[in-house]
Amino acid sequence: MLRHVVLFAWEDKTTPEKIKEIEQAFMDLAQKINLIHDFEWGTDVSTENLAHGFTHCFLVTFKSREDRDAYLPHREHKAFVDLVKPYMKDVLVIDYNPGVHR
Amino acid sequence: MLRHVVLFAWEDKTTPEKIKEIEQAFMDLAQKINLIHDFEWGTDVSTENLAHGFTHCFLVTFKSREDRDAYLPHREHKAFVDLVKPYMKDVLVIDYNPGVHR
Repeated sequence: MLRHVVLFAWEDKTTPEKIKEIEQAFMDLAQKINLIHDFEWGTDVSTENLAHGFTHCFLVTFKSREDRDAYLPHREHKAFVDLVKPYMKDVLVIDYNPGVHR
Repeated sequence: MLRHVVLFAWEDKTTPEKIKEIEQAFMDLAQKINLIHDFEWGTDVSTENLAHGFTHCFLVTFKSREDRDAYLPHREHKAFVDLVKPYMKDVLVIDYNPGVHR
């Protein structure tokens, strides 16, 4: 199993409507791409002021690295990246295997 | 439910042995503090080069914001922060509620 953590920080120009559209597009992506085993997300509710400007956290779960590797260049994923990119101030991606150390 | 995502980036001086000690201390913390409902972690295996220098991702799950609020000032958590702090180049924390949008 592989967790794919994606954080978004928005350009100042990005409207709440555009953010909603992007949230929905990511949810739609999780439905369209069968490689995605599980998907959840939310907006920051931390109280420690250590989020570095990131407001959105998406947790995408794949069954394997191979599925992640097939997802990244997937046509639908690329279309999503094209949608999001103009509105991104910053993006952070970190992947980990949650099984090894439990 | 509340997810508490914690990313660590290490000072250059931090030895692999010290990193192992800190990993173990976080795992021990998850055993000691009953407020922690679920816990997993791993080291970065992403291929996109968007991890901003963070190498460790810990996913701490609480049943509620109240449990998170009780965890942060918990004596055992504070001792862990004191252990980790001298070796941290950077830390990122983002919390989200995974249930709202599923």
